[in-house]
Amino acid sequence: MEQSSVYHRPTDQFAYPYSKDTLHIKIRTKRSNVQNIELIYGDQYEWENDHWICYTDQLEKAGTDSLFDYWKIAVKPEYRRLRYGFKLISNEEQIIYTEKGFYPTQPGDPGLYFCFPYLHQNQVSHPPSWVKDTVWYQIFPERFANGDPTNDSKDTKAWGSESPTAINYFGGDFQGVMNHIEYLKELGISGIYFTPIFKAYSNHKYDTIDYFEIDPQFGDKETFRLLVRKCHKHGIKVMLDAVFNHSGYHFKPFQDVLQNGEKSPYKNWFYTSDFPLKGGERPNYATFSFVETMPKLNTQNQEVKDYLMEVGCYWIREFDIDGWRLDVANEIDHQFWREFRTKVKAIKPDVFILGEVWHDSMPWLRGDQFDSVMNYPFLTNLIHFFAKELIDTRQFVENMTTVMQLYPDTVNEGIFNIIGSHDTSRIVTECDGRVEKVKLIFTFLLTFLGSPCIYYGDEIGLSGENDPDCRKCMPWDQKEWNKELLSHVKFLIHLRKTIRVLANEGSFTFLEPHEGLSSLAYLRKGIDQSILVIINPTNMQEKYPIPLSLKGKKISNLKDNSEYAAEAHHLSVDLGPYDYSILSF
Amino acid sequence: MEQSSVYHRPTDQFAYPYSKDTLHIKIRTKRSNVQNIELIYGDQYEWENDHWICYTDQLEKAGTDSLFDYWKIAVKPEYRRLRYGFKLISNEEQIIYTEKGFYPTQPGDPGLYFCFPYLHQNQVSHPPSWVKDTVWYQIFPERFANGDPTNDSKDTKAWGSESPTAINYFGGDFQGVMNHIEYLKELGISGIYFTPIFKAYSNHKYDTIDYFEIDPQFGDKETFRLLVRKCHKHGIKVMLDAVFNHSGYHFKPFQDVLQNGEKSPYKNWFYTSDFPLKGGERPNYATFSFVETMPKLNTQNQEVKDYLMEVGCYWIREFDIDGWRLDVANEIDHQFWREFRTKVKAIKPDVFILGEVWHDSMPWLRGDQFDSVMNYPFLTNLIHFFAKELIDTRQFVENMTTVMQLYPDTVNEGIFNIIGSHDTSRIVTECDGRVEKVKLIFTFLLTFLGSPCIYYGDEIGLSGENDPDCRKCMPWDQKEWNKELLSHVKFLIHLRKTIRVLANEGSFTFLEPHEGLSSLAYLRKGIDQSILVIINPTNMQEKYPIPLSLKGKKISNLKDNSEYAAEAHHLSVDLGPYDYSILSF
Repeated sequence: MEQSSVYHRPTDQFAYPYSKDTLHIKIRTKRSNVQNIELIYGDQYEWENDHWICYTDQLEKAGTDSLFDYWKIAVKPEYRRLRYGFKLISNEEQIIYTEKGFYPTQPGDPGLYFCFPYLHQNQVSHPPSWVKDTVWYQIFPERFANGDPTNDSKDTKAWGSESPTAINYFGGDFQGVMNHIEYLKELGISGIYFTPIFKAYSNHKYDTIDYFEIDPQFGDKETFRLLVRKCHKHGIKVMLDAVFNHSGYHFKPFQDVLQNGEKSPYKNWFYTSDFPLKGGERPNYATFSFVETMPKLNTQNQEVKDYLMEVGCYWIREFDIDGWRLDVANEIDHQFWREFRTKVKAIKPDVFILGEVWHDSMPWLRGDQFDSVMNYPFLTNLIHFFAKELIDTRQFVENMTTVMQLYPDTVNEGIFNIIGSHDTSRIVTECDGRVEKVKLIFTFLLTFLGSPCIYYGDEIGLSGENDPDCRKCMPWDQKEWNKELLSHVKFLIHLRKTIRVLANEGSFTFLEPHEGLSSLAYLRKGIDQSILVIINPTNMQEKYPIPLSLKGKKISNLKDNSEYAAEAHHLSVDLGPYDYSILSF
Repeated sequence: MEQSSVYHRPTDQFAYPYSKDTLHIKIRTKRSNVQNIELIYGDQYEWENDHWICYTDQLEKAGTDSLFDYWKIAVKPEYRRLRYGFKLISNEEQIIYTEKGFYPTQPGDPGLYFCFPYLHQNQVSHPPSWVKDTVWYQIFPERFANGDPTNDSKDTKAWGSESPTAINYFGGDFQGVMNHIEYLKELGISGIYFTPIFKAYSNHKYDTIDYFEIDPQFGDKETFRLLVRKCHKHGIKVMLDAVFNHSGYHFKPFQDVLQNGEKSPYKNWFYTSDFPLKGGERPNYATFSFVETMPKLNTQNQEVKDYLMEVGCYWIREFDIDGWRLDVANEIDHQFWREFRTKVKAIKPDVFILGEVWHDSMPWLRGDQFDSVMNYPFLTNLIHFFAKELIDTRQFVENMTTVMQLYPDTVNEGIFNIIGSHDTSRIVTECDGRVEKVKLIFTFLLTFLGSPCIYYGDEIGLSGENDPDCRKCMPWDQKEWNKELLSHVKFLIHLRKTIRVLANEGSFTFLEPHEGLSSLAYLRKGIDQSILVIINPTNMQEKYPIPLSLKGKKISNLKDNSEYAAEAHHLSVDLGPYDYSILSF
């Protein structure tokens, strides 16, 4: 057995409370190196006749990637305390793995074992319960719809009349969103994530001038209040973008430092050392990237903290927003986010906190900072598989397993899955315009775990290269829509909203890909219902033999509502090119 | 190369800020599997001609245990942002390891690499600076000295007249400590950790009756105030024991629940569900272990939190104590400790927070909760090696390496190293009375990293089996003292206080044990001075060849102040049985 590959530590995704009486314990071993794992566990204070009382239970294999097998078990420690170790079983040997290392036989002293000292209810950390039921829609407000030409700036271009650039404007606004609320309702989405709406300089508004004002191009506070009310009336949550890593160049405190240098009362609001401030290619003050117009805010300064915390609270308190998406969240200190969480959850306990972190996000997802992060690795993997065909089904399953095994299940249930954003090229463009591939990507997105998000326009096949091209005006002339794609997306959203096992109430398991076939299959398993999704990502017909015994079950294919009773032991599904099935039983 | 054994994650001991401009990056690989590792790193926003600008630098091997090699590097990212990967080099191959996995050649996209997004000063987490210079002395107040017979309870036994039991009393008190302050000063200690002193029922006082009162057997608030002042006057810090996991049976709120059951306003101060409360072998309320007289406090209840936070603040604010040792700290929720840290550090920023955690303590040592933990694994390893001779020198080095590699260096510099406590049998007893072994254990303790602690009486060879026997009265008749041991301890404390490299200002490295020899050697390296400690743990003479080139250096053996100039390239040190050398050069 390859002992050096075995990894467990009683923290993060490896040991966490899932509910008030259940702990999840996970471990990873070298791929195909261990046949079976048992958990040996007990309460360290429970003894009988000088022997520690302990129990054993079987772990299940939760997944496999290119290097590892992942194993999992749920345990309910009677007194909320847990000492535990693992019995690793291979063909050749059995070995006990504890905090103090490996033993040939089971040690009797619980002090040698791993310890999860106490299951506290306040350490059970799920995202707000509504998040897993939400299908998000990301709106870049300048480009969704122009509902009020009176707030357009003087150089506003006609809607969609030219390609988006870093500096042009098309007049999108809140009234535009309100005008199209029926469209969103019909689409079926239940949450809107707005990129920044506060007074700012650029068209993307990531360079804030005033965090307490609505950008006049979008409307005013009254319009925004109406918008939130309208959304809520239609069961749509509203999430705003908190750009706290940096301000804009025209943010008053920064202007003050520019003008008054060392004498400015705001000089410690930023990371400054030399005066006067100098911009250019390498500014002499800290910035987002090296962008001189985005001076980095000193979030360790108490005045800055007070200011930004109040921003976080103000828009919840006064406008009843439901979530904050945190821009460049990873470059702000953890202490700031801990306080932020405490403050905003005190006002609205079920407010959603979503961080923009593109890489491994565990340090922000320990229950004290964010509820969720934007799942960019998910997007990468979808593109490599469906769009670019760089990896095969097995690699796709393995890569997705790697991503899922990074985090506790509690995190995966609310992770913000995207198939594009204002910072990436659009999914239809990644697919080279091949809508049949885009449809499969939506199929995966909307039948997977997590909290899925649709970037405005992706549902009608809007194309776009990387920023700024991915920020085109939403076309409202239906002739420009791919209606087949739109009705596919509507159907899937409807399915997710009505079939509870798809909305994170069912477990998720990839089925082992069949040798010689490319079809991808996974099972969502609930208490009364299971859903088997099978996706053929190729341009060839495939006959997929279902590796489950379904004999006697009534099966319906939710795609076309066909129903059939399984008579044979072994059923197969015929899939055309780029076809899929969603079987319920 | 065994890829499945390679472990790194940008958090915990693997990546942390060491100073305001320095990050430590660590990685572990399978033992002897990788010859060399280079860090590839840069700022993700620094590009030139469409190429990411990155640098490479060598990691150093920081240690080896039975399964792994551990590697380390310190980097100073110019803009405080770091993307990085590892080039793993073995005889057969070179491979690049990044967050996204292994690559045969260096990927150009920084987005694939590990990310430490920003080095924030407030995430540099060292224990208070005085901690690493402190030599602690743990006092169990009932047993150190009886200075005031007027506060003795009526059934107090004559000092040391019988063996300690769970229920007898000997009259130790604060006046006794003050009477012996000269003894402590001469010994050289610079901090006292008092086990609980608040009003409680038992002799160990871990069953608190009133957290705002001094136990009358020890004195009153005035005596305690005098004691703290006297200690401070002599440069001695004072740390108290916070028993917040559970109260005592006679704690008023618990008595109220006992009497009034469901109607008690305090019923949610504890984990109760059935009324009336019933004790016995398995109480119907949560307790420490299953001890009916130690009801577990509900630290998620706001009133309990307010009460205990005020306890934490009160004794600092009113009596100027310097630290809190947190009893059964692991069984209290993390959120409680985060708030506790914020509150007590707001009053006294350099107050020391020390948790009692016997197992892997990483989840409490991430900068938001404790400064340090009691290092029980350190103790176990010393006993196995020096006292019981269960492991050889190589295993000792490996085990100690495992413990050290669990945590960031910042933690190791302030970790609370013990060679016994009120919860273990005494070190001289573990050594079967063989003082020559105890001397070597003290030698190791006082020349090692961390914040060492001496359990009262261990310095004069006081014996004792496990609790309650390890809580004997401190003998004040010098005839009962092992004076050789005492003067050895005094000498070592003096050395640690005067030689800065020993007090955590020097790096620490074990030297590879020589084949066929049992001597243990390790190097403490400072800027101007290095110290080489060599310890012979056997009853045989050993000639230890120093595997360092010291030619031309002036060497002094601090043990006897002998000095010699190194003329030859290869020097050897002759060590008698249980002998040691402390060479300075």
